[in-house]
Amino acid sequence: MAAMSKIATGNGHGENSPYFDGWKAYETNPFHPIDRPEGVIQMGLAENQLCFDFIKNWLIKHPEASLCTAQGVNKFKETALFQDYHGMPEFRQAVAKFMGKVRGDRVKFDPDRIVMSGGATGAHETVAFCLADPGDAFLVPTPYYPGFDRDLKWRTGVELVPVNCESSNDFKITRVALEAAYVKAQEANLRVKGLLVTNPSNPLGTILDRETLKNVVSFINEKNIHLIGDEIYAATVFMDPEFVSISEIIEEDGVECNRDLIHIVYSLSKDMGFPGFRVGIVYSYNDAVVSCARKMSSFGLVSSQTQHLIASMLSNDDFVDNFIAESKELLFKRHKYFTWSLSQVGISSLKSNAGLFIWMDLRKLLRENTFEAEMELWRVIINEVKLNVSPGSSFHCNEPGWFRVCFANMDDNTMAVALLRIRTFVLKNNEAMVPPRKLCRRSSLKLSLSRRMDDLMSPSIMSPHSPLPQSPLVRART
Amino acid sequence: MAAMSKIATGNGHGENSPYFDGWKAYETNPFHPIDRPEGVIQMGLAENQLCFDFIKNWLIKHPEASLCTAQGVNKFKETALFQDYHGMPEFRQAVAKFMGKVRGDRVKFDPDRIVMSGGATGAHETVAFCLADPGDAFLVPTPYYPGFDRDLKWRTGVELVPVNCESSNDFKITRVALEAAYVKAQEANLRVKGLLVTNPSNPLGTILDRETLKNVVSFINEKNIHLIGDEIYAATVFMDPEFVSISEIIEEDGVECNRDLIHIVYSLSKDMGFPGFRVGIVYSYNDAVVSCARKMSSFGLVSSQTQHLIASMLSNDDFVDNFIAESKELLFKRHKYFTWSLSQVGISSLKSNAGLFIWMDLRKLLRENTFEAEMELWRVIINEVKLNVSPGSSFHCNEPGWFRVCFANMDDNTMAVALLRIRTFVLKNNEAMVPPRKLCRRSSLKLSLSRRMDDLMSPSIMSPHSPLPQSPLVRART
Repeated sequence: MAAMSKIATGNGHGENSPYFDGWKAYETNPFHPIDRPEGVIQMGLAENQLCFDFIKNWLIKHPEASLCTAQGVNKFKETALFQDYHGMPEFRQAVAKFMGKVRGDRVKFDPDRIVMSGGATGAHETVAFCLADPGDAFLVPTPYYPGFDRDLKWRTGVELVPVNCESSNDFKITRVALEAAYVKAQEANLRVKGLLVTNPSNPLGTILDRETLKNVVSFINEKNIHLIGDEIYAATVFMDPEFVSISEIIEEDGVECNRDLIHIVYSLSKDMGFPGFRVGIVYSYNDAVVSCARKMSSFGLVSSQTQHLIASMLSNDDFVDNFIAESKELLFKRHKYFTWSLSQVGISSLKSNAGLFIWMDLRKLLRENTFEAEMELWRVIINEVKLNVSPGSSFHCNEPGWFRVCFANMDDNTMAVALLRIRTFVLKNNEAMVPPRKLCRRSSLKLSLSRRMDDLMSPSIMSPHSPLPQSPLVRART
Repeated sequence: MAAMSKIATGNGHGENSPYFDGWKAYETNPFHPIDRPEGVIQMGLAENQLCFDFIKNWLIKHPEASLCTAQGVNKFKETALFQDYHGMPEFRQAVAKFMGKVRGDRVKFDPDRIVMSGGATGAHETVAFCLADPGDAFLVPTPYYPGFDRDLKWRTGVELVPVNCESSNDFKITRVALEAAYVKAQEANLRVKGLLVTNPSNPLGTILDRETLKNVVSFINEKNIHLIGDEIYAATVFMDPEFVSISEIIEEDGVECNRDLIHIVYSLSKDMGFPGFRVGIVYSYNDAVVSCARKMSSFGLVSSQTQHLIASMLSNDDFVDNFIAESKELLFKRHKYFTWSLSQVGISSLKSNAGLFIWMDLRKLLRENTFEAEMELWRVIINEVKLNVSPGSSFHCNEPGWFRVCFANMDDNTMAVALLRIRTFVLKNNEAMVPPRKLCRRSSLKLSLSRRMDDLMSPSIMSPHSPLPQSPLVRART
């Protein structure tokens, strides 16, 4: 048959990753409280389901926000026909204002720099097409979102070079790590065109502090490379410290920055919980990038029907203020409940204050300190505990044993079932623990006895969150 | 400053074309009956505005089709969250059924082969990314839609090689022309990966007959190259002969075809008049292309809000049947009125039965038979007559003097004003015509005396549609 392209026949899409495999496992057997109570619970999807009652109430009171109501239908024709790639002025104004409000109104966004794209996925590809040629590279601190390989590399031919961050300092982006990645890229004959930072971080659920952001800005200015700030989780910061956007840093006194190097990727998929609506935004301080990205937006314009709805919703100050407050409140509560419940069975996670997930620390549960052992544990969790969580390796984490677990994509009941499964799993392995050597053959974990068993049994491995004198999970793995 | 990409700094987007310049001229001074009666009338936009009253009536009667009504709001959450790149099953079923109905139910489409993309623009790019590597080529019969250069070439690095069609046989796609283009591509060291045909044709407004389609299918099978059938104007065929889809040809007895080579690009932008909703479709008979295009659809998914509305609308048989009939009827009437009115002032066009435009023949008005003269005439039409029409050169037509004029993107009153302007322009030049040699200096056309003046004054140049013994336009140019 006639050949297809190298892109089509290659595997650059990155779908063959446990990150996506977990989704498939979920899709073939999705949990349902009545129809499929033994199904897989999806904890691999960073989805924000918590605010829909609030949104629904607003919608019913605002029929004019829809094109398909008696109150709104007179705008149907002009909206259905609207295809200007600049986007509707009222849409851009509303999004710019929302972006400002999400950042505490400490910074203003210019509606004329708002460029549409098909979700953050399309936004990242657009930025990559604008900034880099095939074979050029972006530096990306680890762990990072698995979809970046598809978004930034697949069709553009751009390379991603990891900036290795480590648990020893809570995965902080250091100047040393940045320089090391830069040198490594150069040694590989890659021209470094930019640095991509995700703030708040997916999968860490943490934010970049002011000092780190300043270091990042001075690094990219010294190297004269672009900075892409992925801020799609900006409104999910539910607890102090306060979120700091890259857009605030470059306006600070004493910060020297060539603004032509600064580009923000935004979206309403996470902050509002509308991934289906495909509202992706490129916000660039560089006029040429705005102009080029706008031309490229023809490939991923936001549906004018959706522009109209979003414009109505986000131009309403009361809605926005209350939505942001409500969302933070609900995320805070859910996060607190989830992390506290895990701590009850001895599971700890990186301290976080943002995002729709936690970065769960199961290092002590690994048979050995390898990614093979991480995958073994992951398979047990997905196949036996029936929870789809995502292993750190799929986020390019360079230390085995970390897992991203999403907590905002389910209702309270499903969350309770998930926590019950975790508890049962932990207790079952705990009970079966005596004698330890026997357990290791019988355990559903199928974990062999660790050479570090003595370490594990010592008090030093207790989770700081755990009230139990001996964590069942710790016992389970012995 | 840090370099941008070659794509960003090059001019492959193709925006520097009179096709888009005309839009800009319109945008800086758009006609409005009261506010800007002297503004430019947009006749360069293939937009279908005729059926909105029909659609509006249906919407008001079907509040459940919207997510933002009391009747529909219970589906808001699941829809806003829906991001599966397969698309909603009910959306794909409805679109597949609509595609069948538009083709007279002579052929069935499989919902599992419906792949979403951001409009036809995104669909074409997706197909190009799937089938061709940078430097590979597609053959495209001329004249063709100017946006193809952006859609298929810009970010993919693919080349388009024109198949030169000629007015002498009404721009028919012949085997000779196909072979010539194929050889030319080979001589330029381009690997030909496919042939792209637009049926019904934009800008011709004609359809490909069964014999031509069979020739096309045998050509691509012999060469073992892909065939992309752009059928985005399928429902705009308002008059006999009946539209024949490539999907019918490959199912015919006696037609040998490797179906893996066949791909259809579809959209609701023209057939339903919803360009703002960005519903683009790749329909491929090739499983690998379906699979790859679906992965790529992440960059241009249709908003789930829009999927929901389209699914509601197009799953309603009565709506679809009546809409298709209503649309054809209104296009037929508008086309008839427009072409008849032009014929009254001596302007003829290629005989057509489809599309939202006519291919107007102003060859006799050119100062000389060159594209420079075509551009001179175009500038007069846009700057003095204040009509944005699109010159043939922007469609890669290889004969000067043809212009695409859109007739379905305006209301009856605006159409009347446009026709009045044409009439005034023609008559003014007609009155000022005596003596001819004097006119040529005074004429608002600023056309110099043609070497072919004698030819022009002969009866042979009369439009067959024109009842006038001597066309004023013809006189005007002497």
